[in-house]
Amino acid sequence: MTEVEMPEAEDSQERPGITLARGVCRLLRSHGFAPLTEYVPVPGLRVDVMALGPKGEIWVVECKSCRADFTSDRKWAGYLDWCDRYFWAVDEAFPQDLLPEDTGLIMADAWGGEILRMPPEHRLAGARRSAVTRGFARAAALSLQRLREG
Amino acid sequence: MTEVEMPEAEDSQERPGITLARGVCRLLRSHGFAPLTEYVPVPGLRVDVMALGPKGEIWVVECKSCRADFTSDRKWAGYLDWCDRYFWAVDEAFPQDLLPEDTGLIMADAWGGEILRMPPEHRLAGARRSAVTRGFARAAALSLQRLREG
Repeated sequence: MTEVEMPEAEDSQERPGITLARGVCRLLRSHGFAPLTEYVPVPGLRVDVMALGPKGEIWVVECKSCRADFTSDRKWAGYLDWCDRYFWAVDEAFPQDLLPEDTGLIMADAWGGEILRMPPEHRLAGARRSAVTRGFARAAALSLQRLREG
Repeated sequence: MTEVEMPEAEDSQERPGITLARGVCRLLRSHGFAPLTEYVPVPGLRVDVMALGPKGEIWVVECKSCRADFTSDRKWAGYLDWCDRYFWAVDEAFPQDLLPEDTGLIMADAWGGEILRMPPEHRLAGARRSAVTRGFARAAALSLQRLREG
């Protein structure tokens, strides 16, 4: 009977990489994926973009605006356990050599993007896939509901 | 690479029961469920409200504004195959005797509602539950994306 609690979205203007996230969402949609920003798969982890494919594929994309944004991120390896494929999204100025080779790479701006490197697939186990999909579904529906209610 | 296609929402002003749907969504949220309106689980079926519970429970609520709205509905029995529990939502003036006894009953208005009768649970099989949850997740995320893009 308790009201569903959702973490409040942070001010998008203050978060680096948020304009990249917009382009990433458009790119993902053009690939048939349904994107959701700022999803929290487990307390303490907030992914920039999670996307659900037509066959239930789960991708995570972390958006990095600059070198410091990347080097200060100590959580990203934890995201690997919550997706089938993991990507970085960066802009043209980003020093790509910093990024681990066995991760995906998306070049993006605020308006769109392109997948430059497809990462290997590490498929989630069934139980976790179900839990992530369900959490994604509930988060998306509740955000939509909030937005419509104004 | 094809753009994901979603059916366009119909003009909400013209659909009977849409004000009930709003109250139903609020009610469902207060029960910890994430509601989604106008979801199409399979081509040809459009449910007024589908909601996903914290444990993955799938409820469907059809909103009926008047006797004619109910008697002209020849599809509702088909909805039973897509949920664990099925409810009608009606307003105070609706002749409740029309409704089958083994279905759920919600009394609602535009602002909220109350569950008057909890229906029996007919749990979906695992494969269908996964498919419905995935479809719900993608539909909610794509609607949210559309709304944010404006």
